[in-house]
Amino acid sequence: MIDISVDKKSSRPVYLQISQYFREMISQGKVSEGYRLPPERKLAKALGVNRTTILNAYRDLKEAGLVAGHVGRGTSVLPLSAETEPSPRDIQPLRWPALLRQQAATPWEGVIRDMHALTERTDMIILSIGLPAFDLVPTALIRDAQQAIIADRGPEAFSCSPCEGRFGFRTALAALMERRGAVCDPEEILVTSGSQQAIDLIARVFLEPGDSVVVEEPSYFGALNVFRQAQARLLGVPVDRHGMRTDLLEPLLQRYRPKFIYTLPTYQNPSGALLSLERRRQLLELAHRFRVPVVEDDIYHDLAYEDQPPPTLKALDGAGFVIYVSSFSKVLSPGLRIGWIAAPRSLLHHLVLVKQLTDLHSPTLSQLVIERLLTSGEFLRHVQGLQETYVRRREIMADTLQAEAPEGVSWAKPAGGFYFWCRLPDVPQAALLARAGEERVSYLPGGPCFVHEPPEHRVRLSYSHCPTDQLREGVVRLMRAVRRMPRASAPARARMTETQPIV
Amino acid sequence: MIDISVDKKSSRPVYLQISQYFREMISQGKVSEGYRLPPERKLAKALGVNRTTILNAYRDLKEAGLVAGHVGRGTSVLPLSAETEPSPRDIQPLRWPALLRQQAATPWEGVIRDMHALTERTDMIILSIGLPAFDLVPTALIRDAQQAIIADRGPEAFSCSPCEGRFGFRTALAALMERRGAVCDPEEILVTSGSQQAIDLIARVFLEPGDSVVVEEPSYFGALNVFRQAQARLLGVPVDRHGMRTDLLEPLLQRYRPKFIYTLPTYQNPSGALLSLERRRQLLELAHRFRVPVVEDDIYHDLAYEDQPPPTLKALDGAGFVIYVSSFSKVLSPGLRIGWIAAPRSLLHHLVLVKQLTDLHSPTLSQLVIERLLTSGEFLRHVQGLQETYVRRREIMADTLQAEAPEGVSWAKPAGGFYFWCRLPDVPQAALLARAGEERVSYLPGGPCFVHEPPEHRVRLSYSHCPTDQLREGVVRLMRAVRRMPRASAPARARMTETQPIV
Repeated sequence: MIDISVDKKSSRPVYLQISQYFREMISQGKVSEGYRLPPERKLAKALGVNRTTILNAYRDLKEAGLVAGHVGRGTSVLPLSAETEPSPRDIQPLRWPALLRQQAATPWEGVIRDMHALTERTDMIILSIGLPAFDLVPTALIRDAQQAIIADRGPEAFSCSPCEGRFGFRTALAALMERRGAVCDPEEILVTSGSQQAIDLIARVFLEPGDSVVVEEPSYFGALNVFRQAQARLLGVPVDRHGMRTDLLEPLLQRYRPKFIYTLPTYQNPSGALLSLERRRQLLELAHRFRVPVVEDDIYHDLAYEDQPPPTLKALDGAGFVIYVSSFSKVLSPGLRIGWIAAPRSLLHHLVLVKQLTDLHSPTLSQLVIERLLTSGEFLRHVQGLQETYVRRREIMADTLQAEAPEGVSWAKPAGGFYFWCRLPDVPQAALLARAGEERVSYLPGGPCFVHEPPEHRVRLSYSHCPTDQLREGVVRLMRAVRRMPRASAPARARMTETQPIV
Repeated sequence: MIDISVDKKSSRPVYLQISQYFREMISQGKVSEGYRLPPERKLAKALGVNRTTILNAYRDLKEAGLVAGHVGRGTSVLPLSAETEPSPRDIQPLRWPALLRQQAATPWEGVIRDMHALTERTDMIILSIGLPAFDLVPTALIRDAQQAIIADRGPEAFSCSPCEGRFGFRTALAALMERRGAVCDPEEILVTSGSQQAIDLIARVFLEPGDSVVVEEPSYFGALNVFRQAQARLLGVPVDRHGMRTDLLEPLLQRYRPKFIYTLPTYQNPSGALLSLERRRQLLELAHRFRVPVVEDDIYHDLAYEDQPPPTLKALDGAGFVIYVSSFSKVLSPGLRIGWIAAPRSLLHHLVLVKQLTDLHSPTLSQLVIERLLTSGEFLRHVQGLQETYVRRREIMADTLQAEAPEGVSWAKPAGGFYFWCRLPDVPQAALLARAGEERVSYLPGGPCFVHEPPEHRVRLSYSHCPTDQLREGVVRLMRAVRRMPRASAPARARMTETQPIV
């Protein structure tokens, strides 16, 4: 009955060819509940492949929820899940995972979803989320701008927009770019539905399976997951207090010829690091020499609490190698869903072609509101006020950590942005996450921010999202959880899986 | 100097392997302006491939703007385009197209962008766009809902939302689904940034290069382009007045085992056809028998001008094979950017995992506004009023066509939706488009709605977007343009290209 043929020369891994065979058998109903897959060794021998290949194929089927393995009883096809609606006409329901594009499941693939799900919960102190708290969203400012726009423009406020974004808004963004040291034309700006879409569009126009991308370690998990979904090979460069270790970059560029370097030079997520001017110059020098574009994710730009940050990479570049990404979600309102890309026109052309297919255009009223706040100067004044507020929040978190952290916890006070990137003692990671849940405090474990396993136990604490008066209590609860954990050694590195939500 | 090796067994076409080689040479600066590519015959012989393969490779490079061919002088590398900024430090600028993921350029890839660009122009009568006119957007209704929500909820209106959409809104959408005959749970609904994103997400979870998808011919160009971008093979099924020719479906399902069938059963875009109840049943019977999911794009559902349409496929299905897509862009406001998918939970899980990476979540205030209009009954009342307005608009277009159309123009009055799908005499398509531009009227040529070349000269006229008092004049102008065209035969089929915008 089994009639698999594998093509070892194909660019598609052999294990996926094998699992695809069983997926089709299952989805077409040729084998059903309880059917036993051939024993691994036997199938490996029959196909002339390594046993690990069969193990990987079966693991893929397990992750898709199609089969289960039992010690001593082999691997067999599972019944349809209970949630599937019973068919009134004896039609066997579809097994959706068997029909989908094959993708290697990644341990943290649901991390954004899990974090956003938390925002509807009121019983937790949320230190996990890097978005502004309710009291930091300028409700009256946005409301008044909306009312004025609707009064001025009527239905235009709710009609469609050009795919690239409204020209008036792009002009205001070009002026904002100039304030950030980078002269560019409105025609070099694409309005996106937040910076997440900007990153996704860039991945979609550049990456083919197997392409390499240089990322910082740690980095923004949402970007890492986009690149993983595009089946890119991620090349990690460590980050220290002065940002990306650009001294380690050259061999990677030389050896792998990556499609681009993705960096958050300013108040990095999650480390809070600020890339020094010297390293900015070195990064660009290497990018120019190896002819590799640089994606500069600059969403924390306006959140400077001490000195102004060094010039943006886009401003320092001078040769058009930098693709600049930013957003209004961190400083104005995440609900408006507006970010942008500034890039050379011939690249922007391709980004627009993909943008039109993904969501036609970004919300119209949001564009009009932000344009108004930018041109009136209200945005700038709002940002200055925000800085004072965040300095206070940062001090509360720093003071509480100082007072409450047990031995083995260390951190550096960030000069901007939203995050303390804390090193914890070597306590079991999964157990700490569970214990923190019991204490009703959430944090971001370091795992999703790394290409592979984190080298040490790290957590990201955000002082942006919970109400100010809960910040101290949140840190107290988390440090109590840390204090009460056994200091383990072996199981401390136990990998957490996607099934364990970040609460 | 040329050192290409091609792998004929690779899943990557040989012509792309060859063009990739030159792309890298160019992007790395190993060959520069004026460098002559080897003559086609010579290279074909050297590599042991067909000459067409080389022609295709060079065409790919031409489309990327990297080389140009001149009769008698062969193919040579172009200078950098003039728009590229000169580098102050003698760094040769990047040639972006050479760095991007390779994609076959499609003739109509910019069609959405071009149409949306028109919305900022005031000197044209726009019959090309399938979006509501300014006077059909219920500005006061949306404004008042916004104000009430902001007064009630304050900053929550501008904060982030769960990736799946706000639970209250999903509950209201489930109730709307029930009114459309399909009982589903809020957990089976994913809020999207318009139906365009819904289609894109579905393509992203299902399609791998080479997968087959059944589509109607003609169909919505934005969906065809999404599937093309995913490198799917499109299998076209003709549409007549009663919708998709389901009698032609079986051999396609049998032979190609498509990943899904994409259909607009109700007031189809662009044909206006309404799939009969009998064909709906036949379509589902075939889908069940061949175990193929059906994507039902139902965005024109509420735009019924005569009898109510037959039940949705989702309502008739009963076995969970239908993935239902709809949106508020056609009946409420395209600027709010809200659509949704209703699908079985185990599939929705995968769609959410991709959604979070593409734009985190859809706009918060938009979700709150529509939830309010749905639960208050105002949405339903608005839709009833709309129907009367559109009937009037439809009659104006029908009457004007009747009075003005020269011989050889034919059409059927649609029972719902936005479009007259007119057959024109065999006049040169590109010339008509240019002439209509001179007449200051825009329409959608049929080309983008077909998988290959349209079998006849068709145009889509929309009565939704221009002000009511311009509708008659728009049709008059277009028919005048048709009347003044020479009746050609051979050049009539001349393929129009992406460089010719739809104005």
